[in-house]
Amino acid sequence: MAIVTLLTDSGENDHYVAAIKAKIISTNPGIRIEDISHKIKPADIGHAAFVLRAVFRDFPKGTIHLVGVDSTGNRGDSFIALQVEDHFFVGCDNGLFGLITDKNHQTLVELNSINTISTTFPERDIFAPAAVKLASGVAITSLGKPMSTFKKMTDRQVKATKKQITGTVIRVDHFGNLITNIPREPFDILSKGKAYTVQFGGEKFRRIQTYYNQAEQGECFILFNSIGLLEIGIYKGNASELLGLGYDSTVNIFFEEQV
Amino acid sequence: MAIVTLLTDSGENDHYVAAIKAKIISTNPGIRIEDISHKIKPADIGHAAFVLRAVFRDFPKGTIHLVGVDSTGNRGDSFIALQVEDHFFVGCDNGLFGLITDKNHQTLVELNSINTISTTFPERDIFAPAAVKLASGVAITSLGKPMSTFKKMTDRQVKATKKQITGTVIRVDHFGNLITNIPREPFDILSKGKAYTVQFGGEKFRRIQTYYNQAEQGECFILFNSIGLLEIGIYKGNASELLGLGYDSTVNIFFEEQV
Amino acid sequence: MAIVTLLTDSGENDHYVAAIKAKIISTNPGIRIEDISHKIKPADIGHAAFVLRAVFRDFPKGTIHLVGVDSTGNRGDSFIALQVEDHFFVGCDNGLFGLITDKNHQTLVELNSINTISTTFPERDIFAPAAVKLASGVAITSLGKPMSTFKKMTDRQVKATKKQITGTVIRVDHFGNLITNIPREPFDILSKGKAYTVQFGGEKFRRIQTYYNQAEQGECFILFNSIGLLEIGIYKGNASELLGLGYDSTVNIFFEEQV
Repeated sequence: MAIVTLLTDSGENDHYVAAIKAKIISTNPGIRIEDISHKIKPADIGHAAFVLRAVFRDFPKGTIHLVGVDSTGNRGDSFIALQVEDHFFVGCDNGLFGLITDKNHQTLVELNSINTISTTFPERDIFAPAAVKLASGVAITSLGKPMSTFKKMTDRQVKATKKQITGTVIRVDHFGNLITNIPREPFDILSKGKAYTVQFGGEKFRRIQTYYNQAEQGECFILFNSIGLLEIGIYKGNASELLGLGYDSTVNIFFEEQV
Repeated sequence: MAIVTLLTDSGENDHYVAAIKAKIISTNPGIRIEDISHKIKPADIGHAAFVLRAVFRDFPKGTIHLVGVDSTGNRGDSFIALQVEDHFFVGCDNGLFGLITDKNHQTLVELNSINTISTTFPERDIFAPAAVKLASGVAITSLGKPMSTFKKMTDRQVKATKKQITGTVIRVDHFGNLITNIPREPFDILSKGKAYTVQFGGEKFRRIQTYYNQAEQGECFILFNSIGLLEIGIYKGNASELLGLGYDSTVNIFFEEQV
Repeated sequence: MAIVTLLTDSGENDHYVAAIKAKIISTNPGIRIEDISHKIKPADIGHAAFVLRAVFRDFPKGTIHLVGVDSTGNRGDSFIALQVEDHFFVGCDNGLFGLITDKNHQTLVELNSINTISTTFPERDIFAPAAVKLASGVAITSLGKPMSTFKKMTDRQVKATKKQITGTVIRVDHFGNLITNIPREPFDILSKGKAYTVQFGGEKFRRIQTYYNQAEQGECFILFNSIGLLEIGIYKGNASELLGLGYDSTVNIFFEEQV
């Protein structure tokens, strides 16, 4: 029996999340439901895409991810189910899914084409039934009409030259740590045999460390985190507040030939 | 095996919710527990009743709903188990259960009459054992002495005449949307062949729409929501903050003969 | 199949908790995971220890408690698994486990000695695999090298004489209630045949009650709570805010011979 994960912006003080779960359980009580988060900021598809991208591959292949973030989207957005990297996703084609992977989809269908229910609560009335079908072994191709493509938005891009990598903060996490879009690979290549300076706000550092606790309490740390991205923080402090940086702040790494 | 849902005002940063779950699991590890919410405002039985009423019927019949909101109630309030609309409820007779349905109960017992445990934590020590018994197939009649009635409070009433429907906001949800107590049925009947104006705060609108995304971002929407109640919001905005309206605000619909 | 509980300071708006769960499920889909809390204040091992101590014994013996609070600890802190009071705990030896019980451990091993993974996310990469092994029946002794002792911190102590018990507030809970470290036993012994006065802030009371609802709404209550500790609150109010007391505030009980 497959797992259905839930990722929504519905919060936890209303009936919305329970209504989605109740729908799933009522249809197939054997399904295992796992919450990813219901604390996505309302309609913030960037926040949702960051969280989903960071964790979906940790679930077993074949897991169904029901995504209820900005589900009303814009007029004309379809409700879709897609298979990509051997995972299934069900939600609104509002651009979010284009941000979670660079791989091509294996299958993509438009749910609306079959399910023509008029609803203001698609998570409960359209996504949950589709997720239950997938979890129960129904083929994704039977859930709707094939589509050729889904919405792709251009994510913030990292610029890398021999002299410089420039990225931005794409997430301030629960601890106030600043997670950037700078991956480890270009840094490893470009930093070979070179000294470097990491610069953000008014700060400059000449070392990227390996573990959080290599910084003293209250000191700044810079490391490649558990999802392979450059992360800046204050050890046992809130870097976003203390450094005055946040979403979209610029982070530079400058390389110089060592003499 | 039946499902036990949990609805409490205990928050999530203490041991309270885990203690209830541990008690259930320790007694019968096969029970499926589903959280409805633990974010009910402390002792706010109106908030709890709104959430429970909105979702309990979505769970399978026979589900046991353990309600730990204002469980100490007022001196003299009984702890009860009741069956209504083929669902079971366990909690304190503080008026909450009278707000979730207009139907008569099928069975009603006073838990205290059998279980005379002295406790300051009835959710763990009285409600959880009762819920486990129900989930394990024990008859509700064996949990306590039959009672003839439980506390009924008068909910805010909608006034409807040929010229006007007047209701109030009964819930500001996570998105800041204003959910009123005005149901769809009287509107459908009274609006036949008539123009209408929806009025709240200083605003007047002449259209109730069908979907959220028929409004533009930042525009006001008015629709009958997924639980059949009139809902007012700002598309991708927080209506409560932006309109300065909240719990108990008045909403009117005026009808006029079309000329 | 054993249960794995999770207690972290990771919050619920990132991918962290889902990543831990995904790791567990991917390895052994039959494991039952129960959240204790993810709302521990970042790196607050006192908060975490209070919650864990209050609830771990309510779970069945053999339950595995994965603790991800201040997991990076201080440089040199080991990652450990221990068995105590027939429960298993997996986490960082940062002092937290020394605060949850006064009993000696049954078994204690250092996880690092076998698992030498370099990681900035030990909950996912080290604790979760260890918890899965324990839940799957692997002996704790096979998870690492035996250690003789783990970090013990001195908890705030209660002072008790024939004339006086002095304790402190060790937790302000979700309701604003002030939970002290004063247990029922010394009070029961010392109060025999004596009048007493409970004093905190500028307040003095001459009665410890049995139930919350023996106070009127807005009145102060003092009772021994469901975990056997003296608790002070305002009935249906927030005592911490209303009394201006909080973590570490002093509470005295004075005894006097009755004439």
